[in-house]
Amino acid sequence: MPKRIDTITSAIGWSTPDKIQVHGLDLPSQILGHINLGDMAFMQVTGRKPTEQESNVFNAIAVTLVEHGITPSAMVARLTYMGAPESLQAAVAAGLCGLGTVFVGSMEGASKMLYAALPPEQAGKGADLAAIAKQTVAEHRAARKIVSGLGHPVHKPVDPRTPRLFDIAAENGMSGDYVALIQLIQKEAEAASGKTLPINATGAIGAICCEFGFPEEIIRGFGVMSRAIGLVGHILEETRNPMAFELWQRTEEEILATCGPDAAAAST
Amino acid sequence: MPKRIDTITSAIGWSTPDKIQVHGLDLPSQILGHINLGDMAFMQVTGRKPTEQESNVFNAIAVTLVEHGITPSAMVARLTYMGAPESLQAAVAAGLCGLGTVFVGSMEGASKMLYAALPPEQAGKGADLAAIAKQTVAEHRAARKIVSGLGHPVHKPVDPRTPRLFDIAAENGMSGDYVALIQLIQKEAEAASGKTLPINATGAIGAICCEFGFPEEIIRGFGVMSRAIGLVGHILEETRNPMAFELWQRTEEEILATCGPDAAAAST
Amino acid sequence: MPKRIDTITSAIGWSTPDKIQVHGLDLPSQILGHINLGDMAFMQVTGRKPTEQESNVFNAIAVTLVEHGITPSAMVARLTYMGAPESLQAAVAAGLCGLGTVFVGSMEGASKMLYAALPPEQAGKGADLAAIAKQTVAEHRAARKIVSGLGHPVHKPVDPRTPRLFDIAAENGMSGDYVALIQLIQKEAEAASGKTLPINATGAIGAICCEFGFPEEIIRGFGVMSRAIGLVGHILEETRNPMAFELWQRTEEEILATCGPDAAAAST
Amino acid sequence: MPKRIDTITSAIGWSTPDKIQVHGLDLPSQILGHINLGDMAFMQVTGRKPTEQESNVFNAIAVTLVEHGITPSAMVARLTYMGAPESLQAAVAAGLCGLGTVFVGSMEGASKMLYAALPPEQAGKGADLAAIAKQTVAEHRAARKIVSGLGHPVHKPVDPRTPRLFDIAAENGMSGDYVALIQLIQKEAEAASGKTLPINATGAIGAICCEFGFPEEIIRGFGVMSRAIGLVGHILEETRNPMAFELWQRTEEEILATCGPDAAAAST
Repeated sequence: MPKRIDTITSAIGWSTPDKIQVHGLDLPSQILGHINLGDMAFMQVTGRKPTEQESNVFNAIAVTLVEHGITPSAMVARLTYMGAPESLQAAVAAGLCGLGTVFVGSMEGASKMLYAALPPEQAGKGADLAAIAKQTVAEHRAARKIVSGLGHPVHKPVDPRTPRLFDIAAENGMSGDYVALIQLIQKEAEAASGKTLPINATGAIGAICCEFGFPEEIIRGFGVMSRAIGLVGHILEETRNPMAFELWQRTEEEILATCGPDAAAAST
Repeated sequence: MPKRIDTITSAIGWSTPDKIQVHGLDLPSQILGHINLGDMAFMQVTGRKPTEQESNVFNAIAVTLVEHGITPSAMVARLTYMGAPESLQAAVAAGLCGLGTVFVGSMEGASKMLYAALPPEQAGKGADLAAIAKQTVAEHRAARKIVSGLGHPVHKPVDPRTPRLFDIAAENGMSGDYVALIQLIQKEAEAASGKTLPINATGAIGAICCEFGFPEEIIRGFGVMSRAIGLVGHILEETRNPMAFELWQRTEEEILATCGPDAAAAST
Repeated sequence: MPKRIDTITSAIGWSTPDKIQVHGLDLPSQILGHINLGDMAFMQVTGRKPTEQESNVFNAIAVTLVEHGITPSAMVARLTYMGAPESLQAAVAAGLCGLGTVFVGSMEGASKMLYAALPPEQAGKGADLAAIAKQTVAEHRAARKIVSGLGHPVHKPVDPRTPRLFDIAAENGMSGDYVALIQLIQKEAEAASGKTLPINATGAIGAICCEFGFPEEIIRGFGVMSRAIGLVGHILEETRNPMAFELWQRTEEEILATCGPDAAAAST
Repeated sequence: MPKRIDTITSAIGWSTPDKIQVHGLDLPSQILGHINLGDMAFMQVTGRKPTEQESNVFNAIAVTLVEHGITPSAMVARLTYMGAPESLQAAVAAGLCGLGTVFVGSMEGASKMLYAALPPEQAGKGADLAAIAKQTVAEHRAARKIVSGLGHPVHKPVDPRTPRLFDIAAENGMSGDYVALIQLIQKEAEAASGKTLPINATGAIGAICCEFGFPEEIIRGFGVMSRAIGLVGHILEETRNPMAFELWQRTEEEILATCGPDAAAAST
């Protein structure tokens, strides 16, 4: 059970008739026009503006997570919008509800694994990464657990986002022990399993999030915020080129054909 | 009822084992590292990259909408997270559900009003904006309807975000008839009502969205996507400096005191 | 803007260490074991237990709204559950988000229309229902508005739920002016349009809700609560006989075929 | 990854122009008027109508879960409705999103624990329940895990719902090994910890769900469906006796006072 507190406080911001302060800065004069949307997202999580290098890398991560074509969450947003076009916000909300352990969770999982294998205070101090990778893979295999961030159902043998994200991190001086470690873990996992296991985009992003030192409990949030942007695009397309009704009708017809009265008659 | 269609199509994107295309561009090589998160949001809605001027103005709009301190939607996200900390995505979703007609709707309302008063094909062609403003206010008063985008419960006599947003639009060559029109509408509305009616941030953004020519049905979506970013920040703060449990306990105690068994005894 | 209040109160209930009171009754001794789930829903809206007749009719309404096979909201719940099986509650929530104006709204619309045509204080006092029906249809046709609660894409010429619901209402003494009025409106609308326009289930339920005197702003809520029950059933089936992954894969493949790289090559 | 399937099927139901079948029954003639809402919920999960005894017990469980005064989920529904009163369904959805591991999860947790300690195929066959209880508590203590379903922040030394639910189960012949086992576990846990640990309502319900043999993955769903009913009641009260705006304003004022410009000045 949480504890009672005397006063409610928040460091995020406040407003008075003539001022709006956010993260210690004056929103109109010190934020608007000075930073982009990705930088603002960075500020929401760190409480400060990013450096130029951090901005480059963080924006690349966030942009990656916006869109991946038709996904279950895009289908959900479109099906929901069909029933409640007056509530665009609820269609986005519905689409976000499925960003759980199965899809977006692997980003969080990769970060957790990397932080557990190499605690932040030991990063960048010459740890034996090859040994750590070996041990990490061995532990996962012993526990019959999947290594988060490896493998992809479609993108083989390489997830094309991964080398690009690693390049952007390196160009901006943000490719350190964690990026190296996940690459070593991949090699170990491939050797141990005999399978091709590309580092997928969520694995790459999980590793780069560790380079930033982001708290692991918020990493899923980057996927959620970016996907909210993506879903608005899908809803706009749905207003012009709808697919939700067709998806529904086909499903209903198929169930009627396979389980309806004629199906029963046919199977007699 | 919508119509059946033969094939389901989407221009947003697709992936193959080695390629991910989004809005006609190769995601890894043509998007990642080249644009920021606000630009990606712009692409989701327009299907193309913004110009530098459009990027400046659109990012300023989006950044404005991320955060305004503690709002009902931030409270909702925090209260939801307390009960389901394993589902950060559902806490964000819950927070978005309230971004309806009362709060974010005024942005959409302002754009609708401006497009109705000055259809896009007549903008920038020397329309008599003063006459249009007069008529718009007169119509709203005759119908006893509030003019969307004017007035603010806290920010008086000026919403500090508004002049800054208009400056950014002007500096980037995006301050045209719609920005002029809402300012004329404000003057008319103030003269007609005798009240101070600042153009609030959603009014300013609604006008600037008309300068972009964004379809009115998607304008609420900018508020939704930006607020999703803001809510992730509130949830992170909730993990470190929680207020949800305290809010709940106080409310429960107050209801017990005002309506519980002792309240009944006291009123006998 | 709402007004500030001095104290927060709620008549729904409270708890102390040894008591839980709900709607003025002791939950354990006066509610549990004495009423069924539909009666409890009735109490949530009226603050009192239903009579036996009210219980019969209200439960029939609520049961009707639980299930109608595969619907967009059932598809949404299943697609969401696939991504976040740890959050059953969020899958139900996502499924509810689409119960807006297009589907469940017609129940609310029918009640609003009937209350507007025959205000509650005039019901049961010998109003000229035929004249009211004529005028209502004429007004809808003049305004080119659809009459809520009439017509169904599948159930023709009769929605099989409607006569059964009207019978249950009549058997329990709850078939009065509003049920009569919607039947007269149906006849007028069919005569005026030359089309077959069955009273659909939401129309029948809207009329019966008026017999109860339920406030129109809460009528949509009956659809929402009942569908929550239905969605839990769909989620359970999804755990055993999943369709979400197949729905997603087929859609992705179809978009790849119609809009992907080979489609472009083919159309050259 | 799930597997592809050839055809999509569903045993829940289908409709043709003149028929609606649900769980193998004709909805209008075999369901409507014959069962109450709780029975329909039972059917959604089991595929069959309950016996009279099952109906009594299941309705009592479901009714218990509808309402517990002001809860975080009720606050969420009210705060959401304030911003989007046109989307009652989204306010209910938002309220459901927080029914996760912290609150409703304990019901699921109790069932899981009981099923693990006494697998269904061994129930009712004279297992040594006292020994099982001892071992269960010992295992939880060794792993420093809380025993699900025991203890309550408010209801001490007895949760008043628990004895009533157990009585209803016993009166209907549904109090078997699982109800006995959780009572033995309670005694062991109290003896081992030296604390008063009442079986709370979710513990009692978890045990009774095991008597029914419900699959553990759906048990949370009973809380979700019932709470959806409760939330509709809170939203209706919010339309008449609102608290959301006041909750928001107080919170904003408190943050302004504790963290705003005057707070900063004061602390200098």
